Amino acid sequence: MRFAETDAQGIAHHAAYVVWLEVARVAYLADHAGGYRSIQEKGIEALTTGVQLEYHLPAYFDDALTIRLRCVDIRGARFRYEYRIEREGDLIATGSTSHATVSRETHAPTRVPAWFAAAVATAESAAPEGRPGRGAPAPPGTASRA
Amino acid sequence: MRFAETDAQGIAHHAAYVVWLEVARVAYLADHAGGYRSIQEKGIEALTTGVQLEYHLPAYFDDALTIRLRCVDIRGARFRYEYRIEREGDLIATGSTSHATVSRETHAPTRVPAWFAAAVATAESAAPEGRPGRGAPAPPGTASRA
Amino acid sequence: MRFAETDAQGIAHHAAYVVWLEVARVAYLADHAGGYRSIQEKGIEALTTGVQLEYHLPAYFDDALTIRLRCVDIRGARFRYEYRIEREGDLIATGSTSHATVSRETHAPTRVPAWFAAAVATAESAAPEGRPGRGAPAPPGTASRA
Amino acid sequence: MRFAETDAQGIAHHAAYVVWLEVARVAYLADHAGGYRSIQEKGIEALTTGVQLEYHLPAYFDDALTIRLRCVDIRGARFRYEYRIEREGDLIATGSTSHATVSRETHAPTRVPAWFAAAVATAESAAPEGRPGRGAPAPPGTASRA
Repeated sequence: MRFAETDAQGIAHHAAYVVWLEVARVAYLADHAGGYRSIQEKGIEALTTGVQLEYHLPAYFDDALTIRLRCVDIRGARFRYEYRIEREGDLIATGSTSHATVSRETHAPTRVPAWFAAAVATAESAAPEGRPGRGAPAPPGTASRA
Repeated sequence: MRFAETDAQGIAHHAAYVVWLEVARVAYLADHAGGYRSIQEKGIEALTTGVQLEYHLPAYFDDALTIRLRCVDIRGARFRYEYRIEREGDLIATGSTSHATVSRETHAPTRVPAWFAAAVATAESAAPEGRPGRGAPAPPGTASRA
Repeated sequence: MRFAETDAQGIAHHAAYVVWLEVARVAYLADHAGGYRSIQEKGIEALTTGVQLEYHLPAYFDDALTIRLRCVDIRGARFRYEYRIEREGDLIATGSTSHATVSRETHAPTRVPAWFAAAVATAESAAPEGRPGRGAPAPPGTASRA
Repeated sequence: MRFAETDAQGIAHHAAYVVWLEVARVAYLADHAGGYRSIQEKGIEALTTGVQLEYHLPAYFDDALTIRLRCVDIRGARFRYEYRIEREGDLIATGSTSHATVSRETHAPTRVPAWFAAAVATAESAAPEGRPGRGAPAPPGTASRA
């Protein structure tokens, strides 16, 4: 965690977590789907349409945080991620984000490409069962140090 | 909206909204409850325990945004805010945040003070009916330019 | 000043000042040169090529800060701003930023347009003498609340 | 580089670099001086009193950037860092920051501790000659991926 992400309460500001989730998504895409740039190169942009976070324990400067995430609920032009932010096994926060795929040119909703859905299916099937937010023991997806 | 809050998609980054909600809360407290510092001076700290945002329309650099908010559901050591972010009548985003009051010294949960609940009741009763998220025509609380 | 701009030292994080300078530039352009969008509409983009800040006194949450700035040294495709950040007469910080104008299409350096130089000359001639950093008594340009 | 650090010009916002320099300082302290927390535990706080950056080439989303830095000019209660931000050998930016050490309790200026100066001397003597800003071929200090 960066010092610039702390606030005068001495803890990580709650808006910083939203950036961390994005950092984790980017790492997930790099690990499983050729990176975000490869999505853009295929003429698609993924918009964030919703974010939800619950803060369980404060995070402090220089904490090494692990973000576990799964890509779920791919349907039409929409998909979601679920997240657990942990510090040495302690649950710091849980959250989810919603996304929509649009054409980079027309900004019209565009079905999530089959190759992306396949890449996610491969990633998630390789992961242990259990979902973020429900106490997965050694969960899935990308572990990213914020 | 600040240029620093835009991203390479050419729109306001979704994490910036979380900061705007806080700016609106601070303005609400200044208008209705003597300001955040007055809460701190009474030995209380308000933590953010959850945030939820739905993004309906993109916001662009230099947009004049109005944030309407209500303080709701004051119970024990907890309360919530509900928000609508608008641009000339268009609904840009809706959201809510959850908060807990703790002692500044011990960090133990502390009942929301009666004077705060009374200040909120006065503010909300002065506001037109209708809640953020349900299309209030000329809603309540503080209007803040982000 | 926003709470999100504080850090665990209890003061405004030094990177936040860089954003404030930009907010002040945008206000200056709106007041004197038709706004930043009008520059972009003329096919020009202004890049930031340098920034320099000296921090004299800490700034705290909810401080009402005034940023005084002048546009100076317009030459070819380059120009600068000089800044003073004040709180009720106290000097919080001084700084400057350097900028280059480029074509939005080709990104090639493009002479600062004559109309912009003229607008700046008008703005600065209307301002009291004295420059940021040299203790101008009631300085010039735009005063912007951060 | 994080997506949240881009702006509507499609490049890294110039304020993000200030945060990266801090991330690099924290890594430098962890590598050479027992970490920032160890400084705090000795009753000292290091304030940032100045920052200076020159932007040479734009940085883009997902760029892997290397920040090279040296701690220099330790004198009394003051010291400086010099930086080079690079991308695969290309010079993206150069900069420096100035710092002052104060007592955490009284906030009075406090001499830079001898053990810190010694740790820096060890770190810098192990580093190849050449300084940030003067084209050091394979320079010193900490290399940090922003």
